[in-house]
Amino acid sequence: MCFSTRARYSSSVGRRGFLERMALSVGLVATWPPVLSEGSSGGGVQGQVYSPDAKVVVFQGDSVTDAGRNRDRVDPNHPTGLGSGYAGMATGELLGSGPGSPWHCYNRGVSGDKVFQLAARWQQDCLDLRPDVLSILIGVNDFWHTLSSGYDGTVEIYERDYRALLNRTRATLPDVTFIIGEPFAVTGGTALADAWYPAYADYQAAARQVADDYGAVWIPYQSIFDEALEKAPVEHWCPDGVHPAPAGNYLMAQAWLDAFRTVVSA
Amino acid sequence: MCFSTRARYSSSVGRRGFLERMALSVGLVATWPPVLSEGSSGGGVQGQVYSPDAKVVVFQGDSVTDAGRNRDRVDPNHPTGLGSGYAGMATGELLGSGPGSPWHCYNRGVSGDKVFQLAARWQQDCLDLRPDVLSILIGVNDFWHTLSSGYDGTVEIYERDYRALLNRTRATLPDVTFIIGEPFAVTGGTALADAWYPAYADYQAAARQVADDYGAVWIPYQSIFDEALEKAPVEHWCPDGVHPAPAGNYLMAQAWLDAFRTVVSA
Repeated sequence: MCFSTRARYSSSVGRRGFLERMALSVGLVATWPPVLSEGSSGGGVQGQVYSPDAKVVVFQGDSVTDAGRNRDRVDPNHPTGLGSGYAGMATGELLGSGPGSPWHCYNRGVSGDKVFQLAARWQQDCLDLRPDVLSILIGVNDFWHTLSSGYDGTVEIYERDYRALLNRTRATLPDVTFIIGEPFAVTGGTALADAWYPAYADYQAAARQVADDYGAVWIPYQSIFDEALEKAPVEHWCPDGVHPAPAGNYLMAQAWLDAFRTVVSA
Repeated sequence: MCFSTRARYSSSVGRRGFLERMALSVGLVATWPPVLSEGSSGGGVQGQVYSPDAKVVVFQGDSVTDAGRNRDRVDPNHPTGLGSGYAGMATGELLGSGPGSPWHCYNRGVSGDKVFQLAARWQQDCLDLRPDVLSILIGVNDFWHTLSSGYDGTVEIYERDYRALLNRTRATLPDVTFIIGEPFAVTGGTALADAWYPAYADYQAAARQVADDYGAVWIPYQSIFDEALEKAPVEHWCPDGVHPAPAGNYLMAQAWLDAFRTVVSA
């Protein structure tokens, strides 16, 4: 029944070699499937499992990642802290389908954010959490707000800021593995307009180039939604073209898990 | 990788016969997998699909069902309106893994509720929505609040009120299909105490008897969590024993979908 996206990921020799090195460097290959360490159940805040051996996932982005999360719940693996979007769904399946994987998952998406706004809160909302796997989905507002909010950024600024963010991340966390999601706009959504085409494609291409240059696992959300439109109309997946419905969040979560598994099982 | 729960459902001849009749009576067999009706993409509130042929699912219960939902989002299939718990996860997979199923899913769980509190809001939060499938998970507070909040209810009152609620529902919606979840308490959770045992088991037995007597699909959440504890400690699934972590919500969503599929494919 699952909407398989596994076949969509590119597997160029260069990127795979990089991923293998990254996976090895953070110990993911050796510990998958991971087991809870002895005594790990006794510690932690809010009664959650805080294993000293646990790996950390941070979801970063804008409203698509935020998805109504409770920002007062900053502890990992908290259901309302993870929100009701793809990050929460992916975390549930990651932690619930395995044998008790000690991943600590944080959602730090903030509605409305552009890349420079991620940078402004990067120390506390990313670097301090010391992610082993950092998932970023950013870019739709970097374009959209030039039409809707008088934002004067350009695609060059988007790409420059994105590279600066990853450079800064790697300087602090040299072994971090990046997962980068393609900014998308689901055709026919009520928030979209002719002005999105073809300009928005430049932002998508910039994100792809950044992902390639930094050895990130790339999630091609645009083509995933394009294919979904062959099965049901835009309202089913993402009514306004930007903010997914539950069905769209499910597709994204499945794609994210597929991407994640290419890292941990590379 | 999925934690399969399919084999756990009882399939007595009597119940199956009833389910088959129920499934036929609401047209579920004939329309599964359902397809979107012509022109269905043009209508609706908030850009969602409102097909005249769509079937309705209502999730009812307490905080486990509520799961931080945004109560201002009353329209169906809204991601934050469905919350970050099992109801949202199950809806995402139901709508996202198929070919565009026109189910309208509502979450109307409210934190802290006991059966009599469901009854007080039943007209607007259930009957007016005219569910084809009504999923109820209620009972933990009917017991817990006798210990924690001075509530003077008994298991007899719980069962009497539960039956009255289902009688009232069936009087208005004679073709409704019930899914009833077992109230659970995950052993070792920080909110539990010796006083829960064996008293709470009487509430679980009452819920099971009600489910049997009303031909409901029964979801044995207690045994699902009991088995999960063989894989990871309580903190991983449900730290306080009552409110599931993402991993626990995922298990519940999978069990709910298995239960749902016994109805729609009976």
